[in-house]
Amino acid sequence: MLTLYYAPHTCSLASHIALKDSGAPFDLRRISFKATEQQSPEYLKINPKARVPALVTPRGILTETPAMLAYIAQSFPNAGLAPLDDPFVFAEIQSFNSYLCSTVHVAHAHRMRGYRWTDDPAAIVALQKKVPQSVTACFEMIEQNMLRGPWVMGDTYTIADPYLFTLSQWLESDGADLARLPRVLDHRARMAERPNVKKAVAAELAE
Amino acid sequence: MLTLYYAPHTCSLASHIALKDSGAPFDLRRISFKATEQQSPEYLKINPKARVPALVTPRGILTETPAMLAYIAQSFPNAGLAPLDDPFVFAEIQSFNSYLCSTVHVAHAHRMRGYRWTDDPAAIVALQKKVPQSVTACFEMIEQNMLRGPWVMGDTYTIADPYLFTLSQWLESDGADLARLPRVLDHRARMAERPNVKKAVAAELAE
Repeated sequence: MLTLYYAPHTCSLASHIALKDSGAPFDLRRISFKATEQQSPEYLKINPKARVPALVTPRGILTETPAMLAYIAQSFPNAGLAPLDDPFVFAEIQSFNSYLCSTVHVAHAHRMRGYRWTDDPAAIVALQKKVPQSVTACFEMIEQNMLRGPWVMGDTYTIADPYLFTLSQWLESDGADLARLPRVLDHRARMAERPNVKKAVAAELAE
Repeated sequence: MLTLYYAPHTCSLASHIALKDSGAPFDLRRISFKATEQQSPEYLKINPKARVPALVTPRGILTETPAMLAYIAQSFPNAGLAPLDDPFVFAEIQSFNSYLCSTVHVAHAHRMRGYRWTDDPAAIVALQKKVPQSVTACFEMIEQNMLRGPWVMGDTYTIADPYLFTLSQWLESDGADLARLPRVLDHRARMAERPNVKKAVAAELAE
């Protein structure tokens, strides 16, 4: 059995959707950021980085969204969440997901988590100011060069799709210029109609 | 044939070493950051993100270090650079590499590339001030919780090793507290003795 540690409104939603898509049975464990549970001694044993998501598997614990998504796709091949016999296309998906974690999510994080990179209150405010511009630039790169449509990789839905959907949840609160992102918004709307996405979102907000 | 676009002193060294380890033939193309070649129209056709590394393959172009490393391991299985028949251990390697790109490299980037996240000169200085602390914290996480030794994954050398080696090149210039990182430094020294590492480093500095 798998157990996903998650928090609402975080990138853990991507793995949650992918687990639903995989058809595998799994348990959900909510971590309350409000109660700073991610820094509790119990949770630090699960993930010493004090972040979500974390996936407890029979073999051990995995963290970091791109790795967890690849694990889900490789462990449940019948779900067809990534082409497992084609290293090039698999790497294209990993490249997309790596851009999301190392550039897009990082641009977003400067709005709420500037304290990671400076202790200066004025600098933290300065970081927040640029978030609309830098997040828009990241998503324009996706819009113009990376999102093939209708799904990220083209005609086939893959583990890149729930991850893009998850980060595109934050566009409005980041102040991104939505008018420049019609294809990203179209992808988001298409994702929101999928039953597994509806179920995952509802489950996270219900608990 | 593969072609690696790289720049000295950047994370492209990880893919360069892995290509050497793979035994595959490849060409090197240096991108001069001094001449801002990464923003030239010619290079933007290779990588619209204006970054290195990029790997031109017969199937198309790949970017993002974790994806390129996985591609190299999967395309040249005889080199044994990752366990390809074990989704869990493969994901552990991807998790390590994902932490390097999304957290460690990002902490480092606040020293030289603060302009990505703010236009305020005072804030850029403020970001630089915290780099010694945040980079030390990242590598302490690796030291205490992630680096198994002698190689990242234990007894077996994998694609996680050249990536860790590459980012640990920057410890001194980032002002990290080396006294807290004996195992990371031991790994770096062991990597530096490998013939393929020596050849890759020499090739990058010679051109």
